[in-house]
Amino acid sequence: MTRHDCLARDAVDALSPLRALFALDRLDAEGIVYLDGNSLGVLPRATPDRVREVVASEWGVGLIRSWNAAGWITLSQRIGDKIARLVGAGPGELVVADSTSINLFKVLSAAISMAKTDTPSRRRIVSERSNFPTDLYIADTLAREHGFELALMDDDEVGTAVDDRLAILLLTHVNYRTGRMHRMAEVSRAAHAAGALMVWDLAHSAGAVPVDLRASGVVDDAGDFAVGCGYKYLNGGPGAPGFAWAHPRHTARMDREQWRQPLSGWLGHAAPFEFTADYRPAPGMSRFICGTPPMLSLAALECGVDTVLAADAHGGITALRRKSVALTDVFIELVEWRCRGHGLRVVTPRDVTVRGSQVALAHDTGAYAMVQALIARGAIGDFRAPDILRFGFTPLYTRFVDVWDAVDRLRQILETGEWREPRFNVRAAVT
Amino acid sequence: MTRHDCLARDAVDALSPLRALFALDRLDAEGIVYLDGNSLGVLPRATPDRVREVVASEWGVGLIRSWNAAGWITLSQRIGDKIARLVGAGPGELVVADSTSINLFKVLSAAISMAKTDTPSRRRIVSERSNFPTDLYIADTLAREHGFELALMDDDEVGTAVDDRLAILLLTHVNYRTGRMHRMAEVSRAAHAAGALMVWDLAHSAGAVPVDLRASGVVDDAGDFAVGCGYKYLNGGPGAPGFAWAHPRHTARMDREQWRQPLSGWLGHAAPFEFTADYRPAPGMSRFICGTPPMLSLAALECGVDTVLAADAHGGITALRRKSVALTDVFIELVEWRCRGHGLRVVTPRDVTVRGSQVALAHDTGAYAMVQALIARGAIGDFRAPDILRFGFTPLYTRFVDVWDAVDRLRQILETGEWREPRFNVRAAVT
Repeated sequence: MTRHDCLARDAVDALSPLRALFALDRLDAEGIVYLDGNSLGVLPRATPDRVREVVASEWGVGLIRSWNAAGWITLSQRIGDKIARLVGAGPGELVVADSTSINLFKVLSAAISMAKTDTPSRRRIVSERSNFPTDLYIADTLAREHGFELALMDDDEVGTAVDDRLAILLLTHVNYRTGRMHRMAEVSRAAHAAGALMVWDLAHSAGAVPVDLRASGVVDDAGDFAVGCGYKYLNGGPGAPGFAWAHPRHTARMDREQWRQPLSGWLGHAAPFEFTADYRPAPGMSRFICGTPPMLSLAALECGVDTVLAADAHGGITALRRKSVALTDVFIELVEWRCRGHGLRVVTPRDVTVRGSQVALAHDTGAYAMVQALIARGAIGDFRAPDILRFGFTPLYTRFVDVWDAVDRLRQILETGEWREPRFNVRAAVT
Repeated sequence: MTRHDCLARDAVDALSPLRALFALDRLDAEGIVYLDGNSLGVLPRATPDRVREVVASEWGVGLIRSWNAAGWITLSQRIGDKIARLVGAGPGELVVADSTSINLFKVLSAAISMAKTDTPSRRRIVSERSNFPTDLYIADTLAREHGFELALMDDDEVGTAVDDRLAILLLTHVNYRTGRMHRMAEVSRAAHAAGALMVWDLAHSAGAVPVDLRASGVVDDAGDFAVGCGYKYLNGGPGAPGFAWAHPRHTARMDREQWRQPLSGWLGHAAPFEFTADYRPAPGMSRFICGTPPMLSLAALECGVDTVLAADAHGGITALRRKSVALTDVFIELVEWRCRGHGLRVVTPRDVTVRGSQVALAHDTGAYAMVQALIARGAIGDFRAPDILRFGFTPLYTRFVDVWDAVDRLRQILETGEWREPRFNVRAAVT
């Protein structure tokens, strides 16, 4: 394989027109290869003007009139409906609000509440030791508060933990460090067969890999609750709000039982502008909204989601997934061929059916410094403690030639040994 | 008093240069008087460029590098320090995060936790029936969960509720409907004398009236916890994040006891980028941060806070307060003189020592329609169910002539009776 081969693959890539949706001119001019869309997606070209419109016109001129005139009041639901299309959910089933962490607190509270009623003898939440820390912190806090036990397992032990003690299985679909992906329907089915509830974190999946939360209507294979992130593959911008989903059979029950989630804010009230002292939860998923959402960040998120929906005209998520697998395949192949002999190991599964849209490499001593040295050479990935070099591939804008160039630079910093320079070994506040 | 008198007062107003900090050109050109800065503050002139910079440069070009290079990682604390100066708190004592509702959940959780330890026989949270609904919903949820009772009182009964059953007194400094303001130090002192904790909601105070949370070092008169809103008098834009404060003696104790708030997210961890499975709360107030904050909205909030800090060169909060009192005095006087005989009552206290920066009028049947008719005539206030016409006065940009013009239009819609037209009586989604 040569750089020319990669350019040739880009030339015939049916998704390549989508790259024009992103503001990559400056990065391209500087020769920067960005492989960190799994941490923060690239700026869509439409976003600056849209945000400017919200700031200058909707806020600046419309002011409070924009709650009605600009549709602020239902923006969480409107964007939620768009994201729903990317994760196999239906209209009205998904809302955008707050952060992923806070949304997990809400849906996990719902799951615990249901488990207490339906399976009162079970007091066990199982998750993975390697899950994203916030998920574990939130689960731990809620478990302590409600008298549940949080049991953490290694990846390969989770299957054995699905037994008649299990109340809730909490998993992240694609692991943030390793990029390993769960077989969603299969795992949900196993949890349900054991009589447990299934909560999915889609932070590293939504917009990147096919997700079918409803399992095309097969209730046993469907998830029960899910949350996800707006600023990774959905390109919503730094700190974009997250989202929350519940299976409609659960929201129907919440409606019947007038169930309230603990973060009971005014905008999740059935009649928010009546300003009554008694809380009456809004119907369906809208009860999972709390306070006023950050409109500027919400507007940017919509632009980001629209970039993923634009792929519909080019084969949609199936085409995105095909390209994502090809990109990660090429990356792994090139690393193993061109960077061998420097102590790097490929951590992400070779089996593409359990691989997300990222590749993690491990190095015993140099992972942090290698990432810094790579960034200095204009190839941006990130470090994840203690030993991971992480590279994300966003098929909307990542090219095969980007993969070549990133590996080429990795090879350079390895062969020159420049990553050992002291300047690359000073830890910054954010690593 | 004449319109000319109002213009004359504006001509000698030492704060008048501050109005140039706001993007009011279009509203001025259209003859719109905006008296709703207590719902959503006006756009600062600096905000569009700053937001554009964050979007196009910090996000678009810097991407993940901006966590360090643009200071995203400590932005919540940096803006928090600025807001601290407006509410009598010290550096490091206040953080910006999430929404006001969610921040209330955090600090009220802390207060409940402390009360359980320190005053275990007390199980009573007292608030006002007329408090902002979200505050009551959050308090109700937490009270149920922790076996506390939430007792709601009328304004004038709160004093009598301060007894040896009281664990936590939760009040909003300036009432969102009536504009009535509590005497903060006096109420805090009474709560402390009774052995209870004092939680303040500053949504309608921060940036508008003098607030001295630390009571200049008099611990008995100081608050214990506080929250506030970024998009009212702080001019942070629609849905700007809120803030949370705790008295430093409490955060010192939280540090000693490694106390964790329930919304335990990764950015409130002592070492967020170690990504450890165990939660170790960040020291001080930083533990009250949860997930990644919405950077676009955060950047806009900083511009808004800066407009209030700009008043420091013109007499600061003392001068702002003096003008605010004068504006509300003139409004009340003009309404009573020019709008009499139409059934309007002034609800806001005449006593300026217990009046916030807004004036509420009540009308038994026409409040909603009158507000709509006023907006159609270019004077924007808002309606609060069931019978309130609410007008906010932001001394940074509200002029005396604005007060004249607003009352003049109110008089017109009353004398013509046009507010009775059907088009003003159709309820919109947001009222």
